[in-house]
Amino acid sequence: MNQNMRNMEYAVRGKVVITADSITSSLKTNPSAYPFSKIIYTNIGNPHSVGQKPLTWPRQVMALVDLPDDVGVDNPNVSKLFPQDAVERAKELKSYMGGCGTGAYSHSQGIRGIREEVAEFIEKRDGGIKCNPDDLFLTNGASTGIGHILTACISGPSDGVMIPIPQYPIYSASLALLGGKQVGYYLDENKEWSASIEELERSLKEAKKNGVNVRAFVLINPGNPTGQVLSSSAISSVIKFCSKHSLILLADEVYQENVYDPNKTFISCKKAATEAGMLGKFEMVSFHSTSKGIFGECGRRGGYMELTGFDPDVQAQIYKLASSGLCSGIPGQVMTSLMVKGPKPGDVSYDSHENEKKTIFDSLKRRAVMVSEGLNSIEGFECNAAEGSMYLFPKVDMPEKAIQEAKKQGTNVDTLYSLSLLEATGICVVPAAGFGQEPGRAGFRTTFLPQEEEMKQAVELFKSHHEQFLEKYK
Amino acid sequence: MNQNMRNMEYAVRGKVVITADSITSSLKTNPSAYPFSKIIYTNIGNPHSVGQKPLTWPRQVMALVDLPDDVGVDNPNVSKLFPQDAVERAKELKSYMGGCGTGAYSHSQGIRGIREEVAEFIEKRDGGIKCNPDDLFLTNGASTGIGHILTACISGPSDGVMIPIPQYPIYSASLALLGGKQVGYYLDENKEWSASIEELERSLKEAKKNGVNVRAFVLINPGNPTGQVLSSSAISSVIKFCSKHSLILLADEVYQENVYDPNKTFISCKKAATEAGMLGKFEMVSFHSTSKGIFGECGRRGGYMELTGFDPDVQAQIYKLASSGLCSGIPGQVMTSLMVKGPKPGDVSYDSHENEKKTIFDSLKRRAVMVSEGLNSIEGFECNAAEGSMYLFPKVDMPEKAIQEAKKQGTNVDTLYSLSLLEATGICVVPAAGFGQEPGRAGFRTTFLPQEEEMKQAVELFKSHHEQFLEKYK
Repeated sequence: MNQNMRNMEYAVRGKVVITADSITSSLKTNPSAYPFSKIIYTNIGNPHSVGQKPLTWPRQVMALVDLPDDVGVDNPNVSKLFPQDAVERAKELKSYMGGCGTGAYSHSQGIRGIREEVAEFIEKRDGGIKCNPDDLFLTNGASTGIGHILTACISGPSDGVMIPIPQYPIYSASLALLGGKQVGYYLDENKEWSASIEELERSLKEAKKNGVNVRAFVLINPGNPTGQVLSSSAISSVIKFCSKHSLILLADEVYQENVYDPNKTFISCKKAATEAGMLGKFEMVSFHSTSKGIFGECGRRGGYMELTGFDPDVQAQIYKLASSGLCSGIPGQVMTSLMVKGPKPGDVSYDSHENEKKTIFDSLKRRAVMVSEGLNSIEGFECNAAEGSMYLFPKVDMPEKAIQEAKKQGTNVDTLYSLSLLEATGICVVPAAGFGQEPGRAGFRTTFLPQEEEMKQAVELFKSHHEQFLEKYK
Repeated sequence: MNQNMRNMEYAVRGKVVITADSITSSLKTNPSAYPFSKIIYTNIGNPHSVGQKPLTWPRQVMALVDLPDDVGVDNPNVSKLFPQDAVERAKELKSYMGGCGTGAYSHSQGIRGIREEVAEFIEKRDGGIKCNPDDLFLTNGASTGIGHILTACISGPSDGVMIPIPQYPIYSASLALLGGKQVGYYLDENKEWSASIEELERSLKEAKKNGVNVRAFVLINPGNPTGQVLSSSAISSVIKFCSKHSLILLADEVYQENVYDPNKTFISCKKAATEAGMLGKFEMVSFHSTSKGIFGECGRRGGYMELTGFDPDVQAQIYKLASSGLCSGIPGQVMTSLMVKGPKPGDVSYDSHENEKKTIFDSLKRRAVMVSEGLNSIEGFECNAAEGSMYLFPKVDMPEKAIQEAKKQGTNVDTLYSLSLLEATGICVVPAAGFGQEPGRAGFRTTFLPQEEEMKQAVELFKSHHEQFLEKYK
């Protein structure tokens, strides 16, 4: 079978998670098999799986868009169950579908009316910089968009893409599968996970020396797993670097709504490029998703990508690739529409919708602080604050004996530690090795998505397990 | 950029469709630009886009599954808008999701409870042959499943897959993208598009002689674009051939509900393999989808694949690949559930649901006959009946001058003909060359999905255009 597929690793659903799933099964038949009653999944940015409630209004609109008119928007009893602004919004979305409804394949870039709404959202977000709906592709989450662009970049084993270390493993996994080279550039943990231009140039130079044709550059902002939020000038430096070396910039901006640090703001790469006078002068793709932010609608598989500066012929090839998968799911397209355009001030659902969003955001913000402070209070842990995103990536001082034991078992100490944590506490994290890190560093990634009470307990469990672990390997 | 991507062709959304879309735009600004008022899209199996109504009950259940409990199943007014059996079924589906709802990523093979329902459906369909939910993967339509399996098969440019000629272009497109070899075997138009074992052996032998490692074999039953429905013995021959040569059998069975010929029945490859005593003794994957059948829910992107006879290690690798895309969309998973398990006899929606399905099926059956008879009545057309599926694939005698003109334009006569048909009548078909055919043959593929009155007019337009075309190139 395909050797590239065998070589691919995807830690977010890797060995630790598979063990967690089998513990869940054991607990069903033998509830006292472990010192806990259930697994606390902090391995993945999957908010609804750990207690976050869906926003009401988008689900109401979505239900009405799916219902045939006579039993939905045109039913005389519709107002008994649905607010008026949900009915209106559903009618608007249905009008975009030209009578076909949600059961038809759409244009392979996505429904035109929805792309126009996304374009308006981007223009507003970036202070008026123009966005052309023809440059937007609606995608199944960000994943399919990332897959399309990496597919376009990799022609053979000597092609490579620069990715941050640590990085989100969809990049390393996709590159392994495509048979391309992963060219890592290190983020500096001691400088809030920033990347210096010197490091970018060093990494590129080394790759070139090794015969790699570097085609593209991945920037994740806000960072995953690292949580930093970049300044306009930091982004501009990356843009100039990409332009100078003719690299396609993949701007992973799926956490753009998840900024908690009051001194930080999300600046899009598009805005930074415009301010630097570079927009359209180099190739850039920005990804967004309904799975993160405040919506957390992962199961819906909605999202979009925006292309700027592409050669029309290359863009046509990317369209062809999208069309070979026919179209992204319509429910995901509808959710994308509702993410970029909620109820207007004065609409009957406006206040409740904004309140629901604020409640989720404020709680995420409290958890970001509470968990990073909790982890930092553990002897031997060092953890940068989550300025944004949904993750913390603590560095853990591992006892030498544990490192030796991991070696003996043919694994790394991160995995040994994460499995030990899982079996002692039920907390399921991802070993840091799955994201990449500087040699000699160790740790894990955890979300702070479980609800506040549970997350508080988790912090206590992190602490008590670490003491046990040190005791065991002292 | 990736040369494999550039080489890929996907005719179903190729040049003729792109021209049709631009005509649609022109008609908006200048309604009299063409001798018709709108495009009749018969290029793609997209039933809802050409007037087929969604089934009511599945959409009602789906809406309730998406609505938060307090504004949905638990709302005191729910019965004002939804029938009782839709509420019960929605509660059942919600129970499978363990409180997470439709907004969470599911297990990467799909929600367990839904896989159990699919397993029951398969067991019932095949007369009791066991189906293990662990061998099922819920997918985004059939496309992602096909992509995963072909990815597993192709390690490099010397690996190949046997596909029928004519074939559905997702196979040729995926193979081109993966950089593998397409190994064609011809279906015999004069024998109802059957394939002889002699032809399979010839094709395999030739491929081996050319240094191709043939890894897998694609069987499309009922046929696309060719509409034949295979007998148990015809399938058994293919199974023995695959087993003998250690080929993975990809059984594309997405049209299993679309059988119109009263003398034919759909026999699954699994059933045929069991009857031949071969089940589990060779690797086989069967694909199904919510996009076709009676549901026609293309936009939902739902479907599944069932693996049998796979080495557990290889199956684990396929799981890893599925997990790198996280999971298929939950709305598609829910629709798959509703396709395999409708209301029970006695439930309040049972009769209306069955009636809606029967109305759609009966009309499809009438159109299959009406359009094939209409095409056969055109001088120079020959068209096998559609025993099943949604397509007709007529052979058209082309005038020599048209063939020469196509050469001069650097295209093939199928494309010249299809563009001429489009510009004269607004009917958008796919040139037969997009599916492959014997050298010297010409024609196109058309669906019979537009509603009956429109399809009757289309038959007249096929006829009048053909006369004009012959006149032009006589």
